[in-house]
Amino acid sequence: MKPLWGGRFEKATDSGFAAFSSSIDSDSRLWEVDLLSSIAHARMLGQQKILTAEDARLIIGGLCEIKDEIQSRQWAFDPRAEDIHGEIEKRLAEKIGLAALKLHTARSRNDQVATDTRLYLHRRGLALLADIKKLQAEFLEQAESHVATLLPGMTHLQHAQPVSLAHHLLAYFWMLERDRGRLQEGLARLLSLPLGSAALAGTGFPIDREQTAAELGFREIAPNSMDAVADRDFVIEFLSCASIIMMHLSRFCEELILWSTPEFGFVELGDEVTTGSSIMPQKKNPDVAELIRGRVGRVYGALMGALTMMKALPLAYNRDMQEDKIHLFEGCDTVSTCVQMMTLTLQTLRWKPERMNAALAGDFSNATDLADDLAAKGVPFREAHEAVGHLVKWCIQTDRKLEVLEVKDLRQFHPMFDSASMQRLDFRDVVNRRRSIGGTAAEAIVRQIKQAQAVLCS
Amino acid sequence: MKPLWGGRFEKATDSGFAAFSSSIDSDSRLWEVDLLSSIAHARMLGQQKILTAEDARLIIGGLCEIKDEIQSRQWAFDPRAEDIHGEIEKRLAEKIGLAALKLHTARSRNDQVATDTRLYLHRRGLALLADIKKLQAEFLEQAESHVATLLPGMTHLQHAQPVSLAHHLLAYFWMLERDRGRLQEGLARLLSLPLGSAALAGTGFPIDREQTAAELGFREIAPNSMDAVADRDFVIEFLSCASIIMMHLSRFCEELILWSTPEFGFVELGDEVTTGSSIMPQKKNPDVAELIRGRVGRVYGALMGALTMMKALPLAYNRDMQEDKIHLFEGCDTVSTCVQMMTLTLQTLRWKPERMNAALAGDFSNATDLADDLAAKGVPFREAHEAVGHLVKWCIQTDRKLEVLEVKDLRQFHPMFDSASMQRLDFRDVVNRRRSIGGTAAEAIVRQIKQAQAVLCS
Amino acid sequence: MKPLWGGRFEKATDSGFAAFSSSIDSDSRLWEVDLLSSIAHARMLGQQKILTAEDARLIIGGLCEIKDEIQSRQWAFDPRAEDIHGEIEKRLAEKIGLAALKLHTARSRNDQVATDTRLYLHRRGLALLADIKKLQAEFLEQAESHVATLLPGMTHLQHAQPVSLAHHLLAYFWMLERDRGRLQEGLARLLSLPLGSAALAGTGFPIDREQTAAELGFREIAPNSMDAVADRDFVIEFLSCASIIMMHLSRFCEELILWSTPEFGFVELGDEVTTGSSIMPQKKNPDVAELIRGRVGRVYGALMGALTMMKALPLAYNRDMQEDKIHLFEGCDTVSTCVQMMTLTLQTLRWKPERMNAALAGDFSNATDLADDLAAKGVPFREAHEAVGHLVKWCIQTDRKLEVLEVKDLRQFHPMFDSASMQRLDFRDVVNRRRSIGGTAAEAIVRQIKQAQAVLCS
Amino acid sequence: MKPLWGGRFEKATDSGFAAFSSSIDSDSRLWEVDLLSSIAHARMLGQQKILTAEDARLIIGGLCEIKDEIQSRQWAFDPRAEDIHGEIEKRLAEKIGLAALKLHTARSRNDQVATDTRLYLHRRGLALLADIKKLQAEFLEQAESHVATLLPGMTHLQHAQPVSLAHHLLAYFWMLERDRGRLQEGLARLLSLPLGSAALAGTGFPIDREQTAAELGFREIAPNSMDAVADRDFVIEFLSCASIIMMHLSRFCEELILWSTPEFGFVELGDEVTTGSSIMPQKKNPDVAELIRGRVGRVYGALMGALTMMKALPLAYNRDMQEDKIHLFEGCDTVSTCVQMMTLTLQTLRWKPERMNAALAGDFSNATDLADDLAAKGVPFREAHEAVGHLVKWCIQTDRKLEVLEVKDLRQFHPMFDSASMQRLDFRDVVNRRRSIGGTAAEAIVRQIKQAQAVLCS
Repeated sequence: MKPLWGGRFEKATDSGFAAFSSSIDSDSRLWEVDLLSSIAHARMLGQQKILTAEDARLIIGGLCEIKDEIQSRQWAFDPRAEDIHGEIEKRLAEKIGLAALKLHTARSRNDQVATDTRLYLHRRGLALLADIKKLQAEFLEQAESHVATLLPGMTHLQHAQPVSLAHHLLAYFWMLERDRGRLQEGLARLLSLPLGSAALAGTGFPIDREQTAAELGFREIAPNSMDAVADRDFVIEFLSCASIIMMHLSRFCEELILWSTPEFGFVELGDEVTTGSSIMPQKKNPDVAELIRGRVGRVYGALMGALTMMKALPLAYNRDMQEDKIHLFEGCDTVSTCVQMMTLTLQTLRWKPERMNAALAGDFSNATDLADDLAAKGVPFREAHEAVGHLVKWCIQTDRKLEVLEVKDLRQFHPMFDSASMQRLDFRDVVNRRRSIGGTAAEAIVRQIKQAQAVLCS
Repeated sequence: MKPLWGGRFEKATDSGFAAFSSSIDSDSRLWEVDLLSSIAHARMLGQQKILTAEDARLIIGGLCEIKDEIQSRQWAFDPRAEDIHGEIEKRLAEKIGLAALKLHTARSRNDQVATDTRLYLHRRGLALLADIKKLQAEFLEQAESHVATLLPGMTHLQHAQPVSLAHHLLAYFWMLERDRGRLQEGLARLLSLPLGSAALAGTGFPIDREQTAAELGFREIAPNSMDAVADRDFVIEFLSCASIIMMHLSRFCEELILWSTPEFGFVELGDEVTTGSSIMPQKKNPDVAELIRGRVGRVYGALMGALTMMKALPLAYNRDMQEDKIHLFEGCDTVSTCVQMMTLTLQTLRWKPERMNAALAGDFSNATDLADDLAAKGVPFREAHEAVGHLVKWCIQTDRKLEVLEVKDLRQFHPMFDSASMQRLDFRDVVNRRRSIGGTAAEAIVRQIKQAQAVLCS
Repeated sequence: MKPLWGGRFEKATDSGFAAFSSSIDSDSRLWEVDLLSSIAHARMLGQQKILTAEDARLIIGGLCEIKDEIQSRQWAFDPRAEDIHGEIEKRLAEKIGLAALKLHTARSRNDQVATDTRLYLHRRGLALLADIKKLQAEFLEQAESHVATLLPGMTHLQHAQPVSLAHHLLAYFWMLERDRGRLQEGLARLLSLPLGSAALAGTGFPIDREQTAAELGFREIAPNSMDAVADRDFVIEFLSCASIIMMHLSRFCEELILWSTPEFGFVELGDEVTTGSSIMPQKKNPDVAELIRGRVGRVYGALMGALTMMKALPLAYNRDMQEDKIHLFEGCDTVSTCVQMMTLTLQTLRWKPERMNAALAGDFSNATDLADDLAAKGVPFREAHEAVGHLVKWCIQTDRKLEVLEVKDLRQFHPMFDSASMQRLDFRDVVNRRRSIGGTAAEAIVRQIKQAQAVLCS
Repeated sequence: MKPLWGGRFEKATDSGFAAFSSSIDSDSRLWEVDLLSSIAHARMLGQQKILTAEDARLIIGGLCEIKDEIQSRQWAFDPRAEDIHGEIEKRLAEKIGLAALKLHTARSRNDQVATDTRLYLHRRGLALLADIKKLQAEFLEQAESHVATLLPGMTHLQHAQPVSLAHHLLAYFWMLERDRGRLQEGLARLLSLPLGSAALAGTGFPIDREQTAAELGFREIAPNSMDAVADRDFVIEFLSCASIIMMHLSRFCEELILWSTPEFGFVELGDEVTTGSSIMPQKKNPDVAELIRGRVGRVYGALMGALTMMKALPLAYNRDMQEDKIHLFEGCDTVSTCVQMMTLTLQTLRWKPERMNAALAGDFSNATDLADDLAAKGVPFREAHEAVGHLVKWCIQTDRKLEVLEVKDLRQFHPMFDSASMQRLDFRDVVNRRRSIGGTAAEAIVRQIKQAQAVLCS
């Protein structure tokens, strides 16, 4: 069949170009939302008497049948077709004949594709939100069990101050909470219906866009038909959110990889998500964490690809924009599976509190509190800091641990040290002293956990 | 003066490294928010009796004096200093002596910098929102004057259907409206106070973070101290928004550049924002549009830079994150000036409706309506389309304009054409027929303008 | 079969994780180079007596059979397998039993995959070089036919000076010539053999890397085993080259899209690579050019993805690096098909010299030469420039063409104008005056074409 | 003074736009190469009699004076000027009057700026090559001292096999060697002279481009004037090379950061390039490594920015391209200082071989060789691997070190183990067994060092 647009063309499409321009490889996954939006469109056309009741009925019936056929694998698309939309129209024509063409009344491929892509992304976005929530729940659950587990808190990857493992894990909870916030707002924003914008200028048919929007779950109607068919902001906004999510995951993966080394040994990942080596039998590689970290590149790349694609395109639709789905689907698939794998990783790992504890011994992460001790006694901060600095240097040079010194040792560095100073050095006390809101003390974490629980329930 | 952290160090910082690691070139612009956040911190410390009333008074007084000194240019930072925060503390110490050091009680550079950067971005973000609103108002005003001005609406940069210039301009209004929405949400999200998180673990001092948040205008308190000092999401989120804004501007710039060619001639940019050529006296170059389009690269690059920087950083603060300001300020400055220049460009350009009108003549962008005419008479869509396709081909081959044909010409291509068909071909009628919501008909545009006005007033 | 590395593992790999970590979707296309490198490795092991002659013979025979099986589609990989390398080893084991395992002597997956990827990229790179050469030949051929075809040369998309179409097309020839240079150097650089580096530290077996290199066509042996398995520079370098190629193509595509508008009308793309519109029968959309331009994003994205992936990975191999193939193949496939489509586009387009010529009339792109006329008569350049500037302004205001003025018109603006000045205004003379090397005069272009021919033959 | 191009303009440039479009902030650093290229141009114009000998003498003399003035700080540019080229011309006019304008004969800003930028980058590139060579020499020197220092070689950041520290450091030597290769080729490629291309079409003046090229050190003459003024490949190619260099540095930085943790403790960075903490006196932060790693983002961002800028620009020059210098200078400055700081870091760090050695004890990185022992005795590889896998698992569960087991322990896992097997486990033997070219054995490293020395001398 000659394409519908072939009227003024004399030569056939080059077969290489047909393959080059086909998008069915990627857009075939839009089949279900395409049927949905077509059904809503047909129903509206019928109600507005733009189509006869009979034609509308025929079309809707045909589309429902196609849905069944696809789900039951009775019919499949031609993988060499131009796109999924044409395939479905062709199938509809096979079923109901010429009435099928009337489905295209008052719409064009431009507003149809934009509508389908939004519907698809909305579904995927909701699923991703649920997956993120599961991951948050996992972080939260583990935090609840590890309020009393201490490990060195790091800045610059140097031991800074001891913290609770719960506190460390909850940091990721809140990153993911921001991710959900951004995603939700983006999903709300994309529910602006393009359908009814036709090719770019709207239509003269007396359509009812409100009804279509209502049936499809859109929150508003795109107010400008040119913008509606030319807009791919929602793709870029999603990929931005996805990039930040991946960045967050990569930070935790980095930590898991570090902590899986024999030097740290804070964690052992599950056999389910690691591999060994064919040549080195002793190895247990944190593959899952490396793969998630490595896949950050896919999502950053997809974001950059989509931004590049849209740069300096004049209004309204340009064929360049067909590429939106390549980047969008790459981002969707990657971020979703990575979030799921992160959850599985958490579920199957084993923390090693004894190694964390051992790492604190003699690590000087209690030194701050010793300086605070002096400061509390009225010693100027700089003086206190310098005294402790010298003390630490001496300990390092003579291979001593701070927490097992005697008061006389301390006094060599400042006369205001006393036996109370020594009590400052217990790691659990150090942790539990930081009671400020958001701090790492057990009582502050308990409050934080409640806040996190409330957030997950809302 | 030896740095505060020098206790256990034996060798001095290398001077090349000092220059390499200094951030004062970029962070000096944080001076005002740094003073603000320090004043709020000092006041809170005083109220909580962590500082004596006298010390708090001294510190606040000193900081206010520094503000005056900077504003009146009585004191300036050393451009070779490490960062602005240290410079201000040093100045404070010169003024009030050792009490100055007490300002650092219950905070660290980590939470201080994070707080300052958020405050700074919030201010810049509000200013950007206002600038965008001005640009929207300009688009809207021009749209109001050009409801009746027609030009070819393009898809694939080919004439598709005639549209109103107002409609075309309003497409940008709505893009910018989405930009404002995204920005506003991001600005709300960043108002989560890091101050009080100290280095990474919170503090044992009985601080009142609620009060500090209230004084500084934060909406909430960062719930986890490690996340608070390790989080730069707000930088990336802003740069994502900025990238999309720049992408929008680049699309309009592309059109202005195209439309400024003698071939299109739809617009003449103002002398104020264009240049000539030293060697080609006839030229008037659309420099402003080219420069804005060219600067998209800066903002995309800043976004990629920030994402790269944050990839796989373990918790909590790492020195890499000092680079956040490089990317953030590049993005802020570029997007702000580009939005302002876009407004100036609109204010100084001159539309040329006569050239737009001339471009419609014989461009076949009224052909769709001719096909619709047949369809309305019951001709199947494909048949109607093919008939018009052949008619268009004949017109092109014989150099005829569609709108000046006679009925008998039409009838050679389909018997159902009649004199009413000819009326379909008037461009204004073509435009005004597209009355659907969001369409290009005058009546639909009037509704759209009202919607836009309402949005700007809210 | 339990994986080879399973000795110390107790739980089975999670099926979700198996799918997540599988790379066979992308790396299956390495099958042929994997067989090649394995055959070379086995032959070397045999010659070095590391394997018995019989084992080497068995292995090589088995691998050759597998090659035949794949080519004749008698055997296909399991799409759920971990990777292609394991699939081939499994198949080999089915054929020759336990001897198959000996193929893995003195190599590991790390050096094997690095070798295969280099071999694959080298093949693809050579094919791409040939494709680029074809495209250059096409540009050259068209240039040869269009030395005398004039069109407005643009800067800032404003008419600047008339140029020959040949000259314009040859600009792309030279861009592509640089592309070939970069690619060739990159391909030479990647021919450094990793095989023999084993997992990361080399091997104790008395292997002969020189021989393997010679059989596989590598130019040198990777001098450091850790670097050899950790290096993916060649992927990034290729993607950089590919990005620049795509950028070049996007510039020509932009011009084709512009020139296809009715306003310009300098070219008509072939029916073979364009489409019409289902709703607008008059349209002929330059899809091929838009798609190539749109796919720039894929390659830029792949480059950014690969750079992101490699950032801050410690030595030596990390699983993140498995992602290299995703980015590499995306880049390879996109740039190759785009270069081929660009060639097809050139072959099927039709230049419209009459429209180019018409665009010159009255476009003032001959004004520079009028100023040069005054300058040649000793008028200071600034004075000459200003006189012509005023003349041009007057022509624009009174809608006059420069080339049809009379001497007395000119004299109103400067007394030194005379009848010779008028001869300066002929567009062909303007073009042919620019005889400097690399200039647009016919005689300079003829020299340039000879240079281009020589380059293509070398 | 009205700009030279002002003839047909009526309104003055907006002051905001003047600031927006000014490039002097960035391009002022081109002053020296601008003087160089202008002097070469003037000399050629004089020799070709295009200028009188007197005018050429005047111009060259004036330009030399300006050079002296700038170097001796007697004259400085107006920071609000449009660009450096105009400032220098203005200064020249102040010195020699109207003759100054004649310098612009047969050139335009377009070919001038392209020439200057290439000259500038070539100088910076040579300096960078020298800096990289210094860094290589430092790696090499340290390697020479540490052939016998062993540490765990890692894959997946898990201990894989013991390696020599020299071997590990030399991996970076070879990365940098590839970097030099790429840079050199890029620098050679950019020495193609644009000057003489004028605005875009060449010139009618009888210029001698060969002479100008020779004086300025260009290797060839740009063969197409349109390409010459429209080409910024060299900027992108440089930024690609710079991105890869930064990626290499980031990998070493990552290792330094890891190895500076108390858990690893393989290295202590010098006080010169680290900082302490104002609140945590015990800390020594690897700032230099973090800052270099963090600045990867700047260079990746600059690359993406330049690629974005050039996407889809029509020929020839467009004002967007003014942005090239922003990205280029950012890349140049960042990569140069980072390479220098990396060298300083190496010079000031202290390796801790005793910690490396301690990390090997009981890390099972000698397990591969135990499996090889069985394999050498004819045990099938899989069987050998499984036996060692079980042995390792038992050791881990019972907290045993492999190297201190007794033969009877080994025999529980495979009967072929004997006392010779035990000798396989010595880490130094394990290392020195890997004698293949490029392997980690001392004898192989000595060969590698000789190869590296030869490369540095060439």
